[in-house]
Amino acid sequence: MTQGSPSGRLDSIREPVREECKALEDYFRAYLKTDVPLIDQIFEHLIDGGGKRFRPLLVLLLSACSPHRSKEDVFKLAVAVEFIHTATLLHDDVVDQSEVRRGNRVAYRIWGAEPSVLSGDYLYSRAFNLLVEIGHLGILGAISGATTQMASGEVLQLLRSYSTATTREEYLEVINGKTASLIAASCTAAGYIAGMEDRDLAAAGEYGLNLGLSFQIVDDVLDYASQRGILGKAIGKDFLEGKVTLPVIVLMENINGDTRHQVADIFLKESPQRDDFKLVLELMKKHLVLEKTLEVAVQYRDQAVKALMKIPEDPCRDSLLDLANYVVERCS
Amino acid sequence: MTQGSPSGRLDSIREPVREECKALEDYFRAYLKTDVPLIDQIFEHLIDGGGKRFRPLLVLLLSACSPHRSKEDVFKLAVAVEFIHTATLLHDDVVDQSEVRRGNRVAYRIWGAEPSVLSGDYLYSRAFNLLVEIGHLGILGAISGATTQMASGEVLQLLRSYSTATTREEYLEVINGKTASLIAASCTAAGYIAGMEDRDLAAAGEYGLNLGLSFQIVDDVLDYASQRGILGKAIGKDFLEGKVTLPVIVLMENINGDTRHQVADIFLKESPQRDDFKLVLELMKKHLVLEKTLEVAVQYRDQAVKALMKIPEDPCRDSLLDLANYVVERCS
Repeated sequence: MTQGSPSGRLDSIREPVREECKALEDYFRAYLKTDVPLIDQIFEHLIDGGGKRFRPLLVLLLSACSPHRSKEDVFKLAVAVEFIHTATLLHDDVVDQSEVRRGNRVAYRIWGAEPSVLSGDYLYSRAFNLLVEIGHLGILGAISGATTQMASGEVLQLLRSYSTATTREEYLEVINGKTASLIAASCTAAGYIAGMEDRDLAAAGEYGLNLGLSFQIVDDVLDYASQRGILGKAIGKDFLEGKVTLPVIVLMENINGDTRHQVADIFLKESPQRDDFKLVLELMKKHLVLEKTLEVAVQYRDQAVKALMKIPEDPCRDSLLDLANYVVERCS
Repeated sequence: MTQGSPSGRLDSIREPVREECKALEDYFRAYLKTDVPLIDQIFEHLIDGGGKRFRPLLVLLLSACSPHRSKEDVFKLAVAVEFIHTATLLHDDVVDQSEVRRGNRVAYRIWGAEPSVLSGDYLYSRAFNLLVEIGHLGILGAISGATTQMASGEVLQLLRSYSTATTREEYLEVINGKTASLIAASCTAAGYIAGMEDRDLAAAGEYGLNLGLSFQIVDDVLDYASQRGILGKAIGKDFLEGKVTLPVIVLMENINGDTRHQVADIFLKESPQRDDFKLVLELMKKHLVLEKTLEVAVQYRDQAVKALMKIPEDPCRDSLLDLANYVVERCS
């Protein structure tokens, strides 16, 4: 794996917490063990399915900025935020009726909707157990606030499906809830564990929020740009589900008249066709939509970096800066 | 409404906390208000759908045993446990593909599975927000422990569907998780708010656990005995879903040979018929199954009462005793 490849890049970002990243996988298994074989089976499938462990990595790096942290608490928090994220994936897959996630068949296609909904509930609860064990009300407040925002964000997204009249502000409200809130809360909570002062705590949360917005915008761009395999999912998934993401909003801002009506009608279709997608892709290319959308992601990346510069210098801070760059550079 | 009717009886149980019970409905609405109209709509439907507010009543009565409690915390806890209960109903209805609950069409038949799953997630999170606001780690630990048990209990129940080989112990494990754990945790948490000593806290939890077991067993009996309307649900729902509850287990203990095989086969059927249900009902009548099952509920009621006698005398304690009797007498 070379430094230039995406995995090499991530390895170098993980370097200051390399040991912790390895240990994390054991903690996942230890904290997941249940008395119910089916739940264990679903969780093994999810763990083996991998994932970038993006939120745990943030927790490990941010909390490593202080030497005084409790290692046990760091792992509990890192595992808890990944459990919450995984719970939302389990529920989203049922809601979106997905087929594939991270290149693997999704749990509910294998075991059915019922165990997926209930295993998601189990993961949520286990996450809160772990947070209660840490015993810090600031952390509990940050994370439970985020999960509430996540659920509203998901419902908002559902409500705004198919409507190309969705505005940038409405889109930002959705991704703020469904993605950025948990990433921000993970950073704030890690700051608490590191014993940060209020000013640094606020900076950590601001970094997380902007990183999360940037992350989701890039994900939404990749849905119109990636090759099958890179993200472990097929291109056009959002399109097929009628999700109106930033690339669609930017496209609508750049077209008018008949073309505008045509695109609006495509998003209202029950089953859009391959030609519909092709047309949207061509229009996006013609109007430099993905480039323009990425500019927005870059602006949030810049805000994330600016916030992070407020916390004291540290090798972990360098990794967090690099992570912010990595998030937007996944596209190029 | 006379004293002898079920509603009159409940009114008399509620008497010591009558004002609080009324105020509770306003707190539900206040704590539910969201920025998302669809979530509000679903919640209005759920609130209007009523429900006995069984768990909040336990919280109000137990915490009223102390004059030193914070009223605000009492309501936060009462609302939080009802939110968690309602969240599981929303998810269960999707899992069970129910049509009717409390005499009303279930939310997911009106709005679809997606908003029901996500609104359930929202309610879970809001409940934890409220608990974090109370800021008592003992309460947070009790409730988050219960929600973890609930999710395992539900998955266990799913796994044991259709199998008439299910034992009493396995059944008790399921209802302990899915029902009794939250009722027990509600009582323990209310005890914390009332500032109870460890001994009384344990007694409150023990009362709740046994009450919860008794409550669920009676519910399972009513599924083979009630008239449509009393429980707001049709008789035979568990049967149609292939749930092997205590009446079925007791029936299996009382029959053998061909009859035993016949009943086992009925529970394995994809779509059991009206005649199948009739046969099961007749066998239950012949072997006094419901009476024998109720005896088990009465034993748990007795244990609940015994535990409760350990806490100091109080008008609220009298109501809690009466509530334990009411739970088993719903059947007669």
